[in-house]
Amino acid sequence: METNSANQQVNAQAEVTLSPKDLLAHWQGHRRLTRKVIEAFPEDKLFGYSVAGMRSFGDMTIEIMDMSSDGMNGIITGQWKPIYELDHATGKSPAKTKETVLQQWDQITEQLNKSWQQLSPERFQEVELAFGAYEGKIIDTLFYFIDNEIHHRAQSYVYLRSLGIEPPAFWDRS
Amino acid sequence: METNSANQQVNAQAEVTLSPKDLLAHWQGHRRLTRKVIEAFPEDKLFGYSVAGMRSFGDMTIEIMDMSSDGMNGIITGQWKPIYELDHATGKSPAKTKETVLQQWDQITEQLNKSWQQLSPERFQEVELAFGAYEGKIIDTLFYFIDNEIHHRAQSYVYLRSLGIEPPAFWDRS
Repeated sequence: METNSANQQVNAQAEVTLSPKDLLAHWQGHRRLTRKVIEAFPEDKLFGYSVAGMRSFGDMTIEIMDMSSDGMNGIITGQWKPIYELDHATGKSPAKTKETVLQQWDQITEQLNKSWQQLSPERFQEVELAFGAYEGKIIDTLFYFIDNEIHHRAQSYVYLRSLGIEPPAFWDRS
Repeated sequence: METNSANQQVNAQAEVTLSPKDLLAHWQGHRRLTRKVIEAFPEDKLFGYSVAGMRSFGDMTIEIMDMSSDGMNGIITGQWKPIYELDHATGKSPAKTKETVLQQWDQITEQLNKSWQQLSPERFQEVELAFGAYEGKIIDTLFYFIDNEIHHRAQSYVYLRSLGIEPPAFWDRS
């Protein structure tokens, strides 16, 4: 009974600043926007175009998907794939076209929703070595994933503008 | 006594996902990185350079400072300056050079630290019309400010790269 009561308090009070549910909604909102940005790229420009000698947005999306998918696995299991084994490091990603990127993207959307159910509220404050390399609280690791996605997606806004394409509105997370 | 006890519970449990203190630290970490990015721009390029016909990063920093400073005032007082009266909308910002931008930036750093002390944990879940235009929970409005800063700063990474300048490391928030 004491444990139940404590859990109820945690759930009620976690709402105060940011609940786990709200954090997932925030992330998936950003992911919906990133999906629209991927769609906005012409097929041949997703992996075949960049500005200022930077990576293509296709290559950046592989990094984003690695962090989201392998990162979520690490958070759920406590077993982290080493950073140098991630697809964006090995170059072995199966996502090579807009279609395959979007397919993998949508699978990860489902994966995150499912995995989130297994996350206890206490997990967010635990400190762990993400990908065997980056030590931090799980909440900060999650913010890193989200912020890194915002960061690279924003760079692709410049790519799109330089192609004469109007990017999706930043504020629209529908 | 009952109120004190309730507040203690709120403070203890809000830690579970993200405490107000951690959110401020997260924001100020991003702001330290953005400050380094502003510093990385050559004086004549901050307001005098862009890629793909976009705004200069100097103009973007004015928008970021408006959201941070006038936004924080709105959150503290519940009185929001209308969006069309903000400096980036009127063009009346006193920040015109790298030096004046950095001065205003540092003033806002202090302002946010001070204002944060006045924020009750309950405030984050209240719904309000930010800048008389954008309805949302205060927590989501705050995330919008932070995410918008990440977004525009990332665009300036492309500007810096195209100038042959290595931008500050994204992960370094020191």
